[in-house]
Amino acid sequence: MSPERVPVEANGRSARTRRFKLFFLDRASAVSLQAQLTSQIKELIRTGQLAAGDRLPSSRDLAANLRVSRNTVVYTYDRLVSEGYLHSRLRSQICVAESAPELQRAVRERVRDRQAVPVPATVLISGGSAAPIPFRPCQPDVQLFPLAMWNRLRSRSLRSSHRSLLHYHSAAVLGLRELRENLAAYLRESRGVRCEWWQVAITTGSQQALYLLAQILLNRGDRVYMEDPGYQGAVRAWRAAQAQILYLPVDAEGAMIPALADHPAKLIYVTPSRQFPTGVSLSLTRRLALVNGAGDSSTWIIEDDYDSEFRYDAAPLPSLQNLDACGRVIYIGTFSKLLFPALRLGYAVLPVSLVERFQELKSVVDDHGPMIDQATLAAFLDTGAFYSHIRRCRRFYAERQRTFLEAIQKGGLPFDFRYTDGGMNLTGFLPREFDDIESSARLRRAGLDVPALSSYSERAVAAHSAASDENPPCEPGLVFGFTAFAPERIRAGVENVLRTGLR
Amino acid sequence: MSPERVPVEANGRSARTRRFKLFFLDRASAVSLQAQLTSQIKELIRTGQLAAGDRLPSSRDLAANLRVSRNTVVYTYDRLVSEGYLHSRLRSQICVAESAPELQRAVRERVRDRQAVPVPATVLISGGSAAPIPFRPCQPDVQLFPLAMWNRLRSRSLRSSHRSLLHYHSAAVLGLRELRENLAAYLRESRGVRCEWWQVAITTGSQQALYLLAQILLNRGDRVYMEDPGYQGAVRAWRAAQAQILYLPVDAEGAMIPALADHPAKLIYVTPSRQFPTGVSLSLTRRLALVNGAGDSSTWIIEDDYDSEFRYDAAPLPSLQNLDACGRVIYIGTFSKLLFPALRLGYAVLPVSLVERFQELKSVVDDHGPMIDQATLAAFLDTGAFYSHIRRCRRFYAERQRTFLEAIQKGGLPFDFRYTDGGMNLTGFLPREFDDIESSARLRRAGLDVPALSSYSERAVAAHSAASDENPPCEPGLVFGFTAFAPERIRAGVENVLRTGLR
Repeated sequence: MSPERVPVEANGRSARTRRFKLFFLDRASAVSLQAQLTSQIKELIRTGQLAAGDRLPSSRDLAANLRVSRNTVVYTYDRLVSEGYLHSRLRSQICVAESAPELQRAVRERVRDRQAVPVPATVLISGGSAAPIPFRPCQPDVQLFPLAMWNRLRSRSLRSSHRSLLHYHSAAVLGLRELRENLAAYLRESRGVRCEWWQVAITTGSQQALYLLAQILLNRGDRVYMEDPGYQGAVRAWRAAQAQILYLPVDAEGAMIPALADHPAKLIYVTPSRQFPTGVSLSLTRRLALVNGAGDSSTWIIEDDYDSEFRYDAAPLPSLQNLDACGRVIYIGTFSKLLFPALRLGYAVLPVSLVERFQELKSVVDDHGPMIDQATLAAFLDTGAFYSHIRRCRRFYAERQRTFLEAIQKGGLPFDFRYTDGGMNLTGFLPREFDDIESSARLRRAGLDVPALSSYSERAVAAHSAASDENPPCEPGLVFGFTAFAPERIRAGVENVLRTGLR
Repeated sequence: MSPERVPVEANGRSARTRRFKLFFLDRASAVSLQAQLTSQIKELIRTGQLAAGDRLPSSRDLAANLRVSRNTVVYTYDRLVSEGYLHSRLRSQICVAESAPELQRAVRERVRDRQAVPVPATVLISGGSAAPIPFRPCQPDVQLFPLAMWNRLRSRSLRSSHRSLLHYHSAAVLGLRELRENLAAYLRESRGVRCEWWQVAITTGSQQALYLLAQILLNRGDRVYMEDPGYQGAVRAWRAAQAQILYLPVDAEGAMIPALADHPAKLIYVTPSRQFPTGVSLSLTRRLALVNGAGDSSTWIIEDDYDSEFRYDAAPLPSLQNLDACGRVIYIGTFSKLLFPALRLGYAVLPVSLVERFQELKSVVDDHGPMIDQATLAAFLDTGAFYSHIRRCRRFYAERQRTFLEAIQKGGLPFDFRYTDGGMNLTGFLPREFDDIESSARLRRAGLDVPALSSYSERAVAAHSAASDENPPCEPGLVFGFTAFAPERIRAGVENVLRTGLR
């Protein structure tokens, strides 16, 4: 696709005749309008905005558009034809001449300029399809999403709002009220989250919640406890706030919660329902220790409950926030994995004391979010279709987890899949002598997408550079996401893994 | 609407029977499951999550859900009935008893807690309709927007993408490539902006562009030149970056650009096409001085081209960025006023040297934006409907501007409407002795929304506190937006203004 693509005109005219909105005529200037127009057309040719063969508007059209006399344009064109910049074709069409004096030089300059400016490397990573390949973690199966129902609810919301949904909603920085109310009710009921509707803030995915919280809670150098291995999106948010990050290893009871009274910090980030990416649940003992410790030491807790819906053999666990009597827990979540990722709707349930600060910063960051999607989600939460969808996903994902485990465990690779009670991903821990980064690269060369557990760990990075007893490196492993792939594809992917091997 | 609203179950069951996902049974604990369940039910009652009369699930259901023996639940219920927490009705229904010992205390505690926690003042400002009233500035008429066409394009984009639009698009931090290409082509053609597609970043409104630019360009204490009166969204972004803001008065040639070599700054913010909110265009002389000065002194220029499409009697002016040979101008804009505000799509055209930094920060702030809307806009830009829509808006808005001016100028109030060549707003300057804040408040009491010019000015604020010759306060005036209102409403609104008077 050429980057020089020109929109087709509404009247079907060839795209090569462009609208000329490029002239600025200063009627107060001492320079005549004709001279101004002449030099500006030359400039357009010189800078390549007019190319050889491009057709200029008729003198009548251009004069009307610029509100100058037709003679001004006619004289300008005549001069430029005589100087070789323009060429007059049949039926009074004026075009840029191939031989325009500036043209060759301009082409050479532009080539040189473009060569001089290296295209940033990040630009070169351009999409193909965004669809995930096995076994990318955390990808919902978007084919399961009731898109037709969603679109019907969207149309209905638009119609019933009589277009008022389309306006600015500067009072709705934290989201559409109806969505906040419905979401609050849902979270109370399903996760035991204790909140009023006005404590619920709608964000652009949970990533925005993490960023905003880091900005309002952390000053440069403040200490943050972070699970390790852990979610890198959170790590990036702490880094953007220039916090000092301390990494908490994860064992069979979950993240190893420090004694906050003795080792205080501003903030601690946990994924207690299902630790990301290992999959272990934070034990009740550790939850109580965490909540009580935070209450005593005024530490903020961010509970990131990213996929709690997907517990296959029993009801999801109540939230950590449910145990919190001191208003220290900030509960965040996302609809990306439950509905579809490109929707970009997440939320934070804020302790009362943080609501105003969060709202203030969000209004500077982006004013408010897209309202049609918020109204549609509010309606969706209010219907049985939402619950049907969750149940359907659970059913499909449970089957896919079974399919995956059956297939991979037949293969004889030394994976230890420890935590299999739910979730969208399964971590296969490996014996210490394996280099999971290498294994992941090997699988990538075979056309698979299976991140190394170490890629989620800062301690693994540190371990490569300096031996340290204080921070034993995290165990090696591979993180398999299975939810986005139909069973046949899972089996084929597993065969590929087994065939390729890990080293 | 009660905040305790409970979604209706998909099977139509009464909402008062809730799903119990609130129990966490630690099978590894020394405490028996029955004791755990008992205390947790009591806790639910104490904290008000179970209210008097709420029905609990049958022992069979709860046992199946929690995967415990039915006896465990039966014994738990029996005990709680005997202790007075639960009550057994006909047909084995178990409910929370009115007289539950915890209940009264819980109710009293909750009332006390709610009284103790003041609802933040900002929460109390809840919507009514978001629709603007005369004469709120910068509001497009959403009734003019071709919503049916937009929805058709949306459906088509979804279908042709085979749902791949719904996935994560982590490579599309700066937006969908097709949108960036189409937008780049449009800006090149209509505004003379010089750029490659990969320099175009899609943001959540222009507010996000301002915020991100402030974060990547400004350190604490850096100097920023800001137009005054000027756009307060920009001021908030500089403040969030803790910059030192220096205010530039606005005269008949536009913002008074300082000699940047002698008085350097990190950044200067201008709205050169039509200064917001006064409406004056930046003269060619000042534009050249600004661009040349910035090139020499390495100052960044943010050109906010918020409503350049709405020039009624001639083509829009070329952008400032068009004159920039040194890569100092960052061109930002928005679709909020051209399409509809709740869409939240804006953009920044970045100098090559800023692309990577901007992308890096945006990926931390919110990963990427909503993709369906971006794909729809990409398609919309590619059709004649986009241009038809612009022409249609111009036609309607030009008529409304005429209607407004005719009506208001008959009224005998001492307004001086100086800059009437286009735009969505008209500033009526007032003689120095008027207090425009007072006049605005007066009009507000009469049901009108007409901001005072001084409300956009920091110098006006400073002037009230200290006399200063260096920073003469801005002239008083009132800013009238006319685009969102049909002619009859404009005339009625003007009659109201004339009737109410300014003091």
